Amino acid sequence: MYKQVIIVRKDIDMGRGKLAAQVSHASLSAYQKTLKVNMDIAKAWEREGQKKVVLKVEGLDGLLEHFETAKREGIPCELIRDAGHTQIEAGTVTCVGIGPWEEKKLDELFGKLKLL
Amino acid sequence: MYKQVIIVRKDIDMGRGKLAAQVSHASLSAYQKTLKVNMDIAKAWEREGQKKVVLKVEGLDGLLEHFETAKREGIPCELIRDAGHTQIEAGTVTCVGIGPWEEKKLDELFGKLKLL
Repeated sequence: MYKQVIIVRKDIDMGRGKLAAQVSHASLSAYQKTLKVNMDIAKAWEREGQKKVVLKVEGLDGLLEHFETAKREGIPCELIRDAGHTQIEAGTVTCVGIGPWEEKKLDELFGKLKLL
Repeated sequence: MYKQVIIVRKDIDMGRGKLAAQVSHASLSAYQKTLKVNMDIAKAWEREGQKKVVLKVEGLDGLLEHFETAKREGIPCELIRDAGHTQIEAGTVTCVGIGPWEEKKLDELFGKLKLL
């Protein structure tokens, strides 16, 4: 079983559509990293129905901490900065996409975070 | 210039995280269709920064109508049904991912829809 985790900063004020676009960006970018690192996992995740969860952290520090954790564990991940056309300042780090990777491993590392 | 359009039903009550996950699903699925149909467009869209907009319609009828429009115009698109683990009934159609495709064409077809 595989899943993807997207972690979002809850201290940034984004509308629902903006947020969804940022999460989509994280999802696609992290997926492409997994595809390069381990195509079997990426394809299995797709076959299983692209399971993903969107979690939240208080702010930038927490986000970066989880990003570093994923990197240290060798899990494909991508930090997303907003292009800043609307709503928030250009270059603002909004979220992190992690995996798809083994669900068990992701739960172990990020299971304590709350759903957005 | 290329972009991707994701259209969401606003008559379904989804939390922000759930919505973001559905939009991500639409985004990735439509992207993969474009990749098969026209790899050059898919890759150019990525290089340009994955521009995407999330738009809204009143309900299912409107969503299906826009889905049919995209199909008729030969634009890669994907209808997303929720797996229904949480919040909404299994099999509920939540959104449509369209493209990436030529921005001008997408604006012509869907430019009147409002941002979510």
